[in-house]
Amino acid sequence: MVSTILTAVPVLGIVALIFMAIRYSWVGKQDPGTPRMVRIGDNIAEGAMAFLRAEYRVLAIFVVVVAALLIFTADAATSSYMIGVSFILGAICSALAGFIGMRVATKANVRTTHAARTSLGDALGVAFAGGSVMGLGVVGLGLLGLGALFLLFQGMFVPEAAANGTIEAQTAIVRVITVLTGFSFGASSIALFARVGGGIYTKAADVGADLVGKVEAGIPEDHPLNPATIADNVGDNVGDVAGMGADLFESYVGSIIGTMVIGAAFITIPQFAASDIGGLNAVLLPLVVAGIGILASIIGTFFVRVKEGGDPQKALNTGELIAAAIMLVLTFFAVTTMLPDTWEIVSIDNLGKPLVDPQGDPVSFSYTNMGVFFAIIMGLVAGLGIGYITEYYTGTGTKPVQGIVDQSATGAATNIIAGLAVGMRSTALPILVLAAAIIGAYYFAGLYGIAIAAVGMLSNTGIQLAVDAYGPISDNAGGIAEMANLPKEVRERTDKLDAVGNTTAAIGKGFAIGSAALTALALFAAFMQTAGITTIDIANPYVMAGLFLGAMLPFLFSAFSMEAVGRAANDMIKEVRRQFHEIPELKAALEVMRRAGHDETKWTAADKATFDAADGKADYAKCVEISTAASIREMVMPGLIAVLAPVVVGFAPRLVGSDAGAEMLGGLLAGVTSAGVMMAIFQSNAGGAWDNAKKMFEEGASVQGTIYHKGSDPHKAAVVGDTVGDPFKDTSGPSLNILLKLMSVVALVIAPLL
Amino acid sequence: MVSTILTAVPVLGIVALIFMAIRYSWVGKQDPGTPRMVRIGDNIAEGAMAFLRAEYRVLAIFVVVVAALLIFTADAATSSYMIGVSFILGAICSALAGFIGMRVATKANVRTTHAARTSLGDALGVAFAGGSVMGLGVVGLGLLGLGALFLLFQGMFVPEAAANGTIEAQTAIVRVITVLTGFSFGASSIALFARVGGGIYTKAADVGADLVGKVEAGIPEDHPLNPATIADNVGDNVGDVAGMGADLFESYVGSIIGTMVIGAAFITIPQFAASDIGGLNAVLLPLVVAGIGILASIIGTFFVRVKEGGDPQKALNTGELIAAAIMLVLTFFAVTTMLPDTWEIVSIDNLGKPLVDPQGDPVSFSYTNMGVFFAIIMGLVAGLGIGYITEYYTGTGTKPVQGIVDQSATGAATNIIAGLAVGMRSTALPILVLAAAIIGAYYFAGLYGIAIAAVGMLSNTGIQLAVDAYGPISDNAGGIAEMANLPKEVRERTDKLDAVGNTTAAIGKGFAIGSAALTALALFAAFMQTAGITTIDIANPYVMAGLFLGAMLPFLFSAFSMEAVGRAANDMIKEVRRQFHEIPELKAALEVMRRAGHDETKWTAADKATFDAADGKADYAKCVEISTAASIREMVMPGLIAVLAPVVVGFAPRLVGSDAGAEMLGGLLAGVTSAGVMMAIFQSNAGGAWDNAKKMFEEGASVQGTIYHKGSDPHKAAVVGDTVGDPFKDTSGPSLNILLKLMSVVALVIAPLL
Repeated sequence: MVSTILTAVPVLGIVALIFMAIRYSWVGKQDPGTPRMVRIGDNIAEGAMAFLRAEYRVLAIFVVVVAALLIFTADAATSSYMIGVSFILGAICSALAGFIGMRVATKANVRTTHAARTSLGDALGVAFAGGSVMGLGVVGLGLLGLGALFLLFQGMFVPEAAANGTIEAQTAIVRVITVLTGFSFGASSIALFARVGGGIYTKAADVGADLVGKVEAGIPEDHPLNPATIADNVGDNVGDVAGMGADLFESYVGSIIGTMVIGAAFITIPQFAASDIGGLNAVLLPLVVAGIGILASIIGTFFVRVKEGGDPQKALNTGELIAAAIMLVLTFFAVTTMLPDTWEIVSIDNLGKPLVDPQGDPVSFSYTNMGVFFAIIMGLVAGLGIGYITEYYTGTGTKPVQGIVDQSATGAATNIIAGLAVGMRSTALPILVLAAAIIGAYYFAGLYGIAIAAVGMLSNTGIQLAVDAYGPISDNAGGIAEMANLPKEVRERTDKLDAVGNTTAAIGKGFAIGSAALTALALFAAFMQTAGITTIDIANPYVMAGLFLGAMLPFLFSAFSMEAVGRAANDMIKEVRRQFHEIPELKAALEVMRRAGHDETKWTAADKATFDAADGKADYAKCVEISTAASIREMVMPGLIAVLAPVVVGFAPRLVGSDAGAEMLGGLLAGVTSAGVMMAIFQSNAGGAWDNAKKMFEEGASVQGTIYHKGSDPHKAAVVGDTVGDPFKDTSGPSLNILLKLMSVVALVIAPLL
Repeated sequence: MVSTILTAVPVLGIVALIFMAIRYSWVGKQDPGTPRMVRIGDNIAEGAMAFLRAEYRVLAIFVVVVAALLIFTADAATSSYMIGVSFILGAICSALAGFIGMRVATKANVRTTHAARTSLGDALGVAFAGGSVMGLGVVGLGLLGLGALFLLFQGMFVPEAAANGTIEAQTAIVRVITVLTGFSFGASSIALFARVGGGIYTKAADVGADLVGKVEAGIPEDHPLNPATIADNVGDNVGDVAGMGADLFESYVGSIIGTMVIGAAFITIPQFAASDIGGLNAVLLPLVVAGIGILASIIGTFFVRVKEGGDPQKALNTGELIAAAIMLVLTFFAVTTMLPDTWEIVSIDNLGKPLVDPQGDPVSFSYTNMGVFFAIIMGLVAGLGIGYITEYYTGTGTKPVQGIVDQSATGAATNIIAGLAVGMRSTALPILVLAAAIIGAYYFAGLYGIAIAAVGMLSNTGIQLAVDAYGPISDNAGGIAEMANLPKEVRERTDKLDAVGNTTAAIGKGFAIGSAALTALALFAAFMQTAGITTIDIANPYVMAGLFLGAMLPFLFSAFSMEAVGRAANDMIKEVRRQFHEIPELKAALEVMRRAGHDETKWTAADKATFDAADGKADYAKCVEISTAASIREMVMPGLIAVLAPVVVGFAPRLVGSDAGAEMLGGLLAGVTSAGVMMAIFQSNAGGAWDNAKKMFEEGASVQGTIYHKGSDPHKAAVVGDTVGDPFKDTSGPSLNILLKLMSVVALVIAPLL
């Protein structure tokens, strides 16, 4: 039975990859449209690949150095040099997932534009197919990597002679999982740089395109004369596709490994040892749940269809709901089959002795398989709940966003204050949900429950990510329609898809934060188990100091990434200004527009000729290069902070002769997780709310009975808010998800040494 | 010996109050200047008193209700109905300190203006005398209240027969201190409402005066035609004098009580029991250190003098340094006299059993009196360190503030991003200092060391607060000079004092945050001791959930207070607009200024007559009333959250049958303290930095070689930043100090019930 399950897991990963390949080739076969569209699409695709190449070149050095460190410092007794191999594989899988996602997104964008020339349904089909390639790629690579490595390491480390359910077998399996943590570490490292670098890239290009193009030269963001326009579209892919993919890949892998570590504690319990699966029941369950999620996601994708005039949102919801329903039913059977009805485990203290209650009786925790199932449901529900709360705080026309609209009437300052307040206030409900999920999952199934709740939340990542990635593809499709001067109804169709994309993006961001928090807690519990500590006492001053330092890091990290965006945007602004001054054709065309206005029908033939001569003369590649170089340069420092902080805190107390390193590191993780989640929610939601407040003005927003439009003073105030919100929601906010997971993974990796 | 010390403590409090009274009467005897100045001064004083009356009326209800709850729910065994009496007295002392401070500040402001007509030195003399009344009043009332109540309760609860150093005596003393916590609770409650209400008041008036007066009507902030100008000046007193005073009063009292609770654990140790002080050595030490601080502060105030053309900053520094030096020397003698050279205490677990190490030997902690002295020094140094770091991040011309100036060139959005980044980044160094102080103080003297470090930091509150309160008095003095049309050199002298006041305000804010953090930790340790828990395990899901909820509260609280400022400012804006429209004299005078410009020398005689007719016609009282009503209304909700959250979290787990209430509450406190300190530093420093970036433009700021002045586009962008920063630095940021202390005190008060 073990080997059946163990083989099934990577096979399910391969199934996902096969489906991904089918979708990928289908997307490739769609018509990319006119030569002009092809050229624009190629420019974006080349820019995206240029970024990935540059990024991966830097990351390769990082991966080699860290892998070498892992291999040479590996403690032979508990770990092995294979942890370095896991690390490399994790990094490669994460990078590959990002690569595939970018590749298909930059094919799907232009093909979505072309399909939108026919119908809304066709456009949704192409965009969502592109998204599902990303989604299935992430879960496929994740499960294949984890499953295959588990098989490999089991063969290496578990002696043939070790009987099922013995301490010997347990020790060997713990070693297997410890080595496997390297996979999560590798994935996290790539994710961090992808999120931070991608976030800096996309905002530098966006601000450059906006500020000089729109504000100074008076041409729209996606206008072909704007040298930064390709970089801007590349940025959407780099940040929202590759960044989000790497983020969820990390959560997916991290939550599974965290649960496996905790599940290993049950191996020697008689009901487990005697089972078909030889004690590995709780270890393999997260892999099985993830596998079920893959099946459910694949089936769900078939239900995402819309007719002309229909609502794309409904189509996406249908797909997700069906996937969730399938997932729940199958998971119920998996849990009841794989786990015994009830079992007990005696709690032990930091010295390995059984804990006793005031009466002197041993303290124990009772588990049931239904409890585990309920914990999974808690995770699923909490994920959805946080997503919908996020939509409430950031969606067009909701009360909080209308409040920002109202405050825009008195200027930029009141708009900013209102947005900051909405962001801060929006932390309350998600945290209540999260706290309830933590207590509920623990109530039903202890620490194992908290970890498997994270797996439950993430099990449908396949379709969830497909929905997320569909957004930026549609956004790009709209940009291409604009750049290629396509008829109005095309842009209207892509706008309809894009509007839904904004909602899914908001929900997706909330979901990413919630899953990051639960994953970090799963890894936290795994860290404690691996480091051999059962309590982390806040009254211990090292823990207290660690808690403060940890709570400070999200603030420092956010400051770094926001300042990085500022510097990178400055580079871009200079370059765009230079091109406008130095490229004669651009200069002349801008002059025409300044003199004769934007309405081409009113131009003379000479004007038109000047304008056409400028077409394609902008040096897009140079802008892509600038954004790439700046983001690669700026991602290094925050990345190093995240990786090194846990190492320094874990080992520093030894310098003053204290053995509280593991506890202090625990305090650090608690601080970074609690404050990091708040800062992530605050920044993401404030940014999302500002964005939609601005959008409301573009469609005509009412403030105390007066309707204000684009170009009005309140709209200008709202644009300031949106610009402030951009790095919040696309750079510093989402990067924090990774920060807290990566630090937990680093802690888990160094735990055996502490 | 005990009774000598016990009597000396309230006597030192009385000494402070006598000195305060002397200064107070001296200030009152100074010349308030011309009849016009007297009228303006009276308006401000009346407005301030109107606010206090309205505030105290609401608070009286709150105090009566809470006192009744405390009396009726008092657990007769551990506490007593006297806790309600302590609470009432604490509230009265805090309110009295605020009242005295406001009273003298509103006398000193106009007299400082008058003194500035003669010389800088005289003006500093009056302003600082006003500040020292506040400072000495706070420490005097604090020490007198604590000392007198301790004497009273000792007489009530400690049986005559209880021999020194017995368990019986210890239990009785613990009961005495438990009842004493009510004093701290009372002080905290008033402080919260004073800080929140005052913060809302001052910003509503400020924004109203600015937005309608400056921006819409084109008259300066302090112009007599501006109906909100008196409210604005009242606000400075309400927020910066009474608010800051209540804040430090709370820290002062809280840190002393926290240390007393922890010190009670030593009573039965042989070296203590055998001493002259009968075991109370460590309990009385914080009171003695505070008393020494009073002497040092009084002496220090005599050294604050400046000649014409001299630097007021140097004068203030001299006074503070001399006070610190005296304090250190005397404290050294106090510590070495009162405490034994060395002692040991065996650590116990949550069940009261001795903790053992892996070898089975009991775990114990060794203390030395020198260690305690070093812990006090750590507190003093950390307080100063955090203050100076704050100045670096917020001072005019520093690198971070110049960075904000640079980013103002590209508009309001980049100014905002830069300011947010500076605020976030500025959390790093203070937290490193704080973490080092926590670990260092613990290393030297355990949890007692952390608590007494807070006392050390706060011991010189007398002179520290005098320096803090001097700032708003000078600010007011400048406003009065403007409103009274005094010659330019008067305004220049008050500006010089005011500029120094901005620096001292920044340092004072940093100091207030640092002391709040250490005080909260002292109270946290006291809470654990009183609740009978020795570990708060982060791995416990209730603690984890509590940690998340706690970390969320500062965000929610900040959102509440920022939105409250917005609403209150709206009320004010409407009222100012109404007056401009409905009061004919004002309308006519504004018309003159619009038509003939601001330069009075160019007006016709008729213009001048119209203008003079408007003088004093603005209905200042109505604006004061609006600001008062709005701030009182808005302070209730955040106040209730702060008081009720610990109660709900402490008792809610019982509803699901868990006894983890105390631990979950511990998690809540850890979360609120760690995230609260970050948010307080972030918001205060971002606000301070924006403020000074704007000031730099007013004096002509250089951005990449170009000098920009008042009215330039970059200056306008900086004004937006300053407006956003106002509620950050004067409302939500400082309120968090109180939030974390108040929640810790509430936890300590309900601890015996958990």
